[in-house]
Amino acid sequence: MKKSVITVLMLLPFVFCMAQGQQRNAPPSQQKQEYPARMTPQMTEFFEPAVPVIQPAAQVGMPPSDAIVLFNGSDVNKEWEDSKGNPTKWVVENGSLVCVKGSGVIQTKRKFNDFQLHIEWKSPSEVKGDGQGRGNSGVYLQSLYEVQVLDSYDNPTYVQGQAGSLYKQHAPLVNACRKPGEWQSYDIIYTAPRFEEDTLSFFTPPRVTVLHNGVLIQNNVSLRGPTLYIGMPEYSVRKHGAMPLVLQDHGNPVAYRNIWIREL
Amino acid sequence: MKKSVITVLMLLPFVFCMAQGQQRNAPPSQQKQEYPARMTPQMTEFFEPAVPVIQPAAQVGMPPSDAIVLFNGSDVNKEWEDSKGNPTKWVVENGSLVCVKGSGVIQTKRKFNDFQLHIEWKSPSEVKGDGQGRGNSGVYLQSLYEVQVLDSYDNPTYVQGQAGSLYKQHAPLVNACRKPGEWQSYDIIYTAPRFEEDTLSFFTPPRVTVLHNGVLIQNNVSLRGPTLYIGMPEYSVRKHGAMPLVLQDHGNPVAYRNIWIREL
Amino acid sequence: MKKSVITVLMLLPFVFCMAQGQQRNAPPSQQKQEYPARMTPQMTEFFEPAVPVIQPAAQVGMPPSDAIVLFNGSDVNKEWEDSKGNPTKWVVENGSLVCVKGSGVIQTKRKFNDFQLHIEWKSPSEVKGDGQGRGNSGVYLQSLYEVQVLDSYDNPTYVQGQAGSLYKQHAPLVNACRKPGEWQSYDIIYTAPRFEEDTLSFFTPPRVTVLHNGVLIQNNVSLRGPTLYIGMPEYSVRKHGAMPLVLQDHGNPVAYRNIWIREL
Amino acid sequence: MKKSVITVLMLLPFVFCMAQGQQRNAPPSQQKQEYPARMTPQMTEFFEPAVPVIQPAAQVGMPPSDAIVLFNGSDVNKEWEDSKGNPTKWVVENGSLVCVKGSGVIQTKRKFNDFQLHIEWKSPSEVKGDGQGRGNSGVYLQSLYEVQVLDSYDNPTYVQGQAGSLYKQHAPLVNACRKPGEWQSYDIIYTAPRFEEDTLSFFTPPRVTVLHNGVLIQNNVSLRGPTLYIGMPEYSVRKHGAMPLVLQDHGNPVAYRNIWIREL
Repeated sequence: MKKSVITVLMLLPFVFCMAQGQQRNAPPSQQKQEYPARMTPQMTEFFEPAVPVIQPAAQVGMPPSDAIVLFNGSDVNKEWEDSKGNPTKWVVENGSLVCVKGSGVIQTKRKFNDFQLHIEWKSPSEVKGDGQGRGNSGVYLQSLYEVQVLDSYDNPTYVQGQAGSLYKQHAPLVNACRKPGEWQSYDIIYTAPRFEEDTLSFFTPPRVTVLHNGVLIQNNVSLRGPTLYIGMPEYSVRKHGAMPLVLQDHGNPVAYRNIWIREL
Repeated sequence: MKKSVITVLMLLPFVFCMAQGQQRNAPPSQQKQEYPARMTPQMTEFFEPAVPVIQPAAQVGMPPSDAIVLFNGSDVNKEWEDSKGNPTKWVVENGSLVCVKGSGVIQTKRKFNDFQLHIEWKSPSEVKGDGQGRGNSGVYLQSLYEVQVLDSYDNPTYVQGQAGSLYKQHAPLVNACRKPGEWQSYDIIYTAPRFEEDTLSFFTPPRVTVLHNGVLIQNNVSLRGPTLYIGMPEYSVRKHGAMPLVLQDHGNPVAYRNIWIREL
Repeated sequence: MKKSVITVLMLLPFVFCMAQGQQRNAPPSQQKQEYPARMTPQMTEFFEPAVPVIQPAAQVGMPPSDAIVLFNGSDVNKEWEDSKGNPTKWVVENGSLVCVKGSGVIQTKRKFNDFQLHIEWKSPSEVKGDGQGRGNSGVYLQSLYEVQVLDSYDNPTYVQGQAGSLYKQHAPLVNACRKPGEWQSYDIIYTAPRFEEDTLSFFTPPRVTVLHNGVLIQNNVSLRGPTLYIGMPEYSVRKHGAMPLVLQDHGNPVAYRNIWIREL
Repeated sequence: MKKSVITVLMLLPFVFCMAQGQQRNAPPSQQKQEYPARMTPQMTEFFEPAVPVIQPAAQVGMPPSDAIVLFNGSDVNKEWEDSKGNPTKWVVENGSLVCVKGSGVIQTKRKFNDFQLHIEWKSPSEVKGDGQGRGNSGVYLQSLYEVQVLDSYDNPTYVQGQAGSLYKQHAPLVNACRKPGEWQSYDIIYTAPRFEEDTLSFFTPPRVTVLHNGVLIQNNVSLRGPTLYIGMPEYSVRKHGAMPLVLQDHGNPVAYRNIWIREL
C-alpha cells in the first residue's frame, strides 16, 4: 500500500501540469468559496520514505552502529596507508596512533564525500617549541581542506592557524583547548563541494562544522578553496570526487585515537 | 607561458600540504617579523582562465551571439514539438507563435540545465474570462517549474497565481503587467537543482530570478519542489538532469515571440 | 600595537577606493612583470580579532565555562516559568525535570537568538500509547520551531513526526533512539532567521543541526516557517527577535536534565 | 474581510503550539485513515499580502513607475555630490554625465540597501592607453563594492579587472562589451550584506547579479569583502547600513546616462 502512495506522488507533477487547463477552468462560483481552504492534520503527515534505524553507542563519542571505524586502538594498516599507498611508519602505542617525524602524511584507503567524523587527538604532555611548532598536525578533509591540530593551550599564533581553525581561512569561534597531554575530540560535519561545469569553480563550496571537546567552534563555514600555506585559495579550486581523509605529519608526535566516520 | 602558470597553480595545494612541515618550522625569529605582511597589487591580478568574448545584440532584448534562438518568428518545428514528440498544432501568425486550445503543451527538442532565457508574450487584446481564466499560459523551466503567464492587468487572482509568480510558490514582488494585447517580456535566470544521493531531495533547490518588462519581480527565489496545482511540492521532488523548456496550453490563445536562451 | 593594526585595516577600503586612480596608473612596463605575483606565508597570517579562550568541561556533554546552565538538577524556577510568567507545575524528581500533564509548556525567562543547546530527555520506561501518544514532548527553538521529542523506539508514526524531526517539516536522517527509560541527548545548533523589510518573509530561514545521542540527524536544514500542526508554514512567518526556549507539555511525563546553552 | 484572514493566520502558530496536546490525542482509529490526506487546490491559493501594482516603462531599459531617477540627462546636483558633500565638478554634456579627471568620485545624496539599478555608460570613442588605463571608471554599490567600468573591447587586462568584473573578486562570465564610443548598459541586482554581532563578519555576504548589454555576466555572486586594490577583502569587513551609490573618477572621461534605481 505504501508503494502505491509513492507511485501516485511521483505522477503528481506531470498529471497536474497537463491537467491544469481543465481543472482550473471550474466555474468561478465553485472556485472562490474560501481561500485558503482549511487543511487537516493528515495532509502534512507522510510515512515515506522510511527513516533508517541505527543504534547509537552506549556512550556519546563512541561509534554508532552505522559508523566505519577507522582506528580503534590496534591495527593501523587496515584502513590507512602513506601517501604512496605503502604501510605507514606512524606507530601504535598504548592504543593510540602516533605521528613519527618524517614519515609523511597518512591517508585512508577509503574515499569519502559528505560525512560526520569523530576523532580524538593529544599533543605531547612535554611542551616543546611554540606557535606553529608545538603539537602541530592536521586533519585534512577530502585530502585538501585542513582542520588544524595544534597545542593551542596558552600558545599564541595567528588566529586562523590555531587549533580548530580551518587553516588560514577561518579562526575558531572560541579556543576550547585542553592542556597538553590531555585527550581532545573533534566532531566534524563535512559537506563536500559541488562543482561548476568549468571544473575550476565551486557550485557550492565545502562547508564545515566543528565541535571541539563538545563546544561549537566552526558553524557551517564555507571554504574559499583548498588549504594553502601561501596564497589565495580561490585560484586553486579543481574539481574532485570522493577523497581520502588525511592526517598530517608536521614533525610533532601528536597522537590519535577513536576515529570513526559516518557517510552522509 | 600561461599554461605553465596554471600548472603551477594546480600543484599548489598538494605541494604545500606536503611541505608545510618544513616550511612552517622556520625559526620564530624569522616568522614573527610582520603580520599580515604587506601584499602588492599584482598578487591579486590573474589572467586565467580567460573570459570568452561574445557580441551583444545591437538592441537589448535581442539575442547575443552565444544564444540559441528558439523562435524568431518563422519555423516552430525546428526547435519545438508536442509532448509526444510530434509536430505541434500551435500556429505561427504574423511572426508570433500562438497557442491553440486543446493542442497540449509544446516543448523544446533540446534539453537544458542552467540558463538565461528571454521570452516575449502577449495575452489576447480582447479580454475574455477572469482570474485564472484570462490569458493563461505558462513557461515551465526544465518542464517542472512554472513561471506563470497570465493577463494580470486589473485581473485579481490568488497572488502566487498571477503573472510572474512561481506558480503556487512565490508571488511576484510587484505586478509589472502591460495591458492585454501588448507585448511583454520575461528575462529569466535559472539555476537548476542539484540532488542528494537519495534522489528524492534537493541538495540545492532550483533558483529563479525574473525581470518582467525589465522590472525585477523574482529575486533568486528557491523552489520547494515541482509546480503543483494541488498539494505540497516538497514531496514530489525526483532527481532529474537536463530537461526541455515547456510552454503551457491552458486553453487561451496566448502568443509568444523572440525566444532565446543562453546555457550557463 | 594591535589596535593600530585594526585601525589601518579599517581605513583600507576607503584608502584604496580613493587612491586607485593614481596607483593603477603606473606605467605598463612596471605593471606587467609578473601575474599573479608570488605571496609569502606571512601575508595570510592574522592575529586579530583575538579568539576568546574558554574551558571545555572535563567530560563532553557537560557545560563548558561559557554556557548558561538552564537546569542542573535542582531549582527549576530560576530559569523557567510557565507561558503566563508564573512558576511552573512541572516537578523536579531525582535531579530531573518532569512534565506534569495539563501544566502547559515551560519557557525560559531568558530570550535567545543563535545558540548551541545541549539537552537530555527520557521517555517513561513504562510504555503507554503508541504513535504520537507515546513519550511525546518537544523542544521549541525560539518558541516557534519544534524539535520533536517522542519515544520513537519501535514506535512507527509519520516520519516528520518522529523523534528528532523538525516537526512536520524534516524527518531525521536516521532514527538514533535509545530504549524508553534511557537518557538521550540532543545537541542542537540553531541559527535564528533574519527577516525581510515586509516582516512577513524570511531573509534567511531558521537553520537547525541536531545530533541525537551523538549521531547527526539534522544537517543544517532550513525551516519553511513556524511549526504547524495544520497547514503550510510559509504563510505564518512573522518577524521576531530573541525568544525563549520552550518545552512542550504533550500530556506525557517526559523527563529532562542537564540543559545548557551557549549564545553564538 | 481580508484583515480577518491575516489575523487568523497570525494566531496559527501559537494556537497549534498550545493545542497540540489535545488535538493529537485523537483516537488512532480516527487518525490513521489516510496519509497524506488529499488536499484541494484552494488550500494553496492565497490572496494576502497583496502585490503592489506598478507601471513598466514603454521601453525596457527606461525607468518604471516605482524607480528613483538618479540622472535623466539634466541636473546632476539634485541627486549627486562629491565625497565631501559639495557640488561635483563632473559635467553634463549632451545629456550625459562625464567624469572630469581629478574631480574625485561622485556619490548619491540618498543611501540604499538592496536594489535594482540600471545605468548606462560609454568609454571615449578615441582610444587612449591600455589595460586599466583605458576608459576606466566604476560603479560602487553601497560605496564599497565595485562593478568595474572599463573599455574592455579588445583590451586585455587581468580577468577580474575587466568590464563587468566585481573588481579583483569575480571575473565576468563573458565579455559582452561594445566598442568604445558606444553606449552600454548594466542592470544590477544587489543584495546588501547582513552582519554578525561582532560587526567584523558577514552573516550573509553582499550578492550581485549583473546583466551587461542584456547578457548575464554575474550570477548572484557573493563578495568576500569590500573591493580592495591591494590585499584580502575578508579582513576589511566592517558593519554598515544603507550607503550611497558611488561613481569612480579613475582619470578617464567616461560618460553616464539613464541612471535609475528601485529599492527592494
